Amino acid sequence: MKIVIAGLGIIGGSIAKALKKYTDHTVIGINRSRTPVEKALECGAIDEAGNIDSLRTADMLILGTYPDAAVSFVRDNAQYINKSCIVVDTCGIKSEICPKLSAAAAEYGFVFVGFHPMAGKEKNGFDASEADLFLGASSIIIPGNAPRDAVNTVASLTSKIGFGRVIFTTPEEHDRMIAFTSQLPHVLACAYVFSPQCPNHNGFSAGSYRDVSRVANINAELWSELFIENKQPLVNEIQTFIDNLTEIQSGIKKGDRKELAAILHRAKVIKEELGE
Amino acid sequence: MKIVIAGLGIIGGSIAKALKKYTDHTVIGINRSRTPVEKALECGAIDEAGNIDSLRTADMLILGTYPDAAVSFVRDNAQYINKSCIVVDTCGIKSEICPKLSAAAAEYGFVFVGFHPMAGKEKNGFDASEADLFLGASSIIIPGNAPRDAVNTVASLTSKIGFGRVIFTTPEEHDRMIAFTSQLPHVLACAYVFSPQCPNHNGFSAGSYRDVSRVANINAELWSELFIENKQPLVNEIQTFIDNLTEIQSGIKKGDRKELAAILHRAKVIKEELGE
Repeated sequence: MKIVIAGLGIIGGSIAKALKKYTDHTVIGINRSRTPVEKALECGAIDEAGNIDSLRTADMLILGTYPDAAVSFVRDNAQYINKSCIVVDTCGIKSEICPKLSAAAAEYGFVFVGFHPMAGKEKNGFDASEADLFLGASSIIIPGNAPRDAVNTVASLTSKIGFGRVIFTTPEEHDRMIAFTSQLPHVLACAYVFSPQCPNHNGFSAGSYRDVSRVANINAELWSELFIENKQPLVNEIQTFIDNLTEIQSGIKKGDRKELAAILHRAKVIKEELGE
Repeated sequence: MKIVIAGLGIIGGSIAKALKKYTDHTVIGINRSRTPVEKALECGAIDEAGNIDSLRTADMLILGTYPDAAVSFVRDNAQYINKSCIVVDTCGIKSEICPKLSAAAAEYGFVFVGFHPMAGKEKNGFDASEADLFLGASSIIIPGNAPRDAVNTVASLTSKIGFGRVIFTTPEEHDRMIAFTSQLPHVLACAYVFSPQCPNHNGFSAGSYRDVSRVANINAELWSELFIENKQPLVNEIQTFIDNLTEIQSGIKKGDRKELAAILHRAKVIKEELGE
């Protein structure tokens, strides 16, 4: 296949590198600024720099940009996209994005398949990309109304570049789960380091501090977009969390050890039932 | 030195193993139940099983038990403890424990030094203990009114068994910091897995889920005691956290990207200023 990647940040760059490492597909890179394209050419992550013409003959177009930019890119270039092209996004939220891209696909005659690579780092940009970023990670695919063979093409491609498993779901289920598994931990990390004790933690901290605060080193521009475009599921998840936190806080205030131990034990049971 | 360890769980057991691995001191083990003592003898973590008589000639008595049990052990056995013995606790909270043990020390003529080894695992008991549990960890020491040479003896011993650095502090400062660095993350982990989404996370989760939920596999009996005995600092820390979480939640509800990005960016700055 001739695969165009638009947006060579950590995700687009890693997909490019993984495609070159694990497949024989031709990889073409497009980026708003020039530097990542040059770096990608230099290290062999892409075969060539692309342009609008590349879209006319692409078998697959992978959108490595932020969500809104992905929609804009497709809308601005829809008329140039090959009718037999499979367009694939990589956005961390789906309900806000997939319907728009499906509509563009229906209007212009190409195919759209939603995709969320469940991998990342605390660093961004092409420099942070790596061929093995996706090893063992979940490849979440939102088929929507795409033809089954296009969905299978995307799914098997993600398996080839290292993903450990493929999950098929809907935009709504995806967004509800991601609000819990990924967005909430980022919110918690930020709220955590806002404590007045944080700057003095050194010497008093071990693995727990490190783990909770890790993703507080956040890409504020990206995550504010992701949070707001997944507003309701995330606001709900935060509220559930506050309610649960308040229950534990009340147990501590009350000071009944057996009662508090019973609350905490519920957490242990949940983890054990999950085999974790 | 002749060092008696009372309580051969993960902490007491690991101290025993580390003492045998890194020093030439004689290590004597005492435990309420017999099995850990037998296991410790078998694997060479202790030189002999101890009893009340061992306390009469001990140079150091390390309390590896839960906080209240540490106080009870010392009160019950104070009359047998060698007058030149240094008694060292290993409790995760200090304001509730150190004054009681200092008082016992003053009354019976031995020395007490507070100690919190900042290391642990999600498993408990002697079977989870290991000689290198403390490698690079913080050794937090609460000198209280102990003589300087006793404090130095404890500090240098912790360095010898692998601790990466020694921090001297007060019970109050210790408890305020630990509420933030260690207790709050355990509370967050429990509140987190209480979400109705949790049992279905598989396939939608990556490092963030794993990191936040890790310590939810909690020893409910121990931590309910630690939480309640550090009630005020922890309740305050949880409240600060809820307030910070509510600020972020409001920013998401409001939906102003720049404003939300500015809030999140503060977290990034805090992490960067800490060099993390």
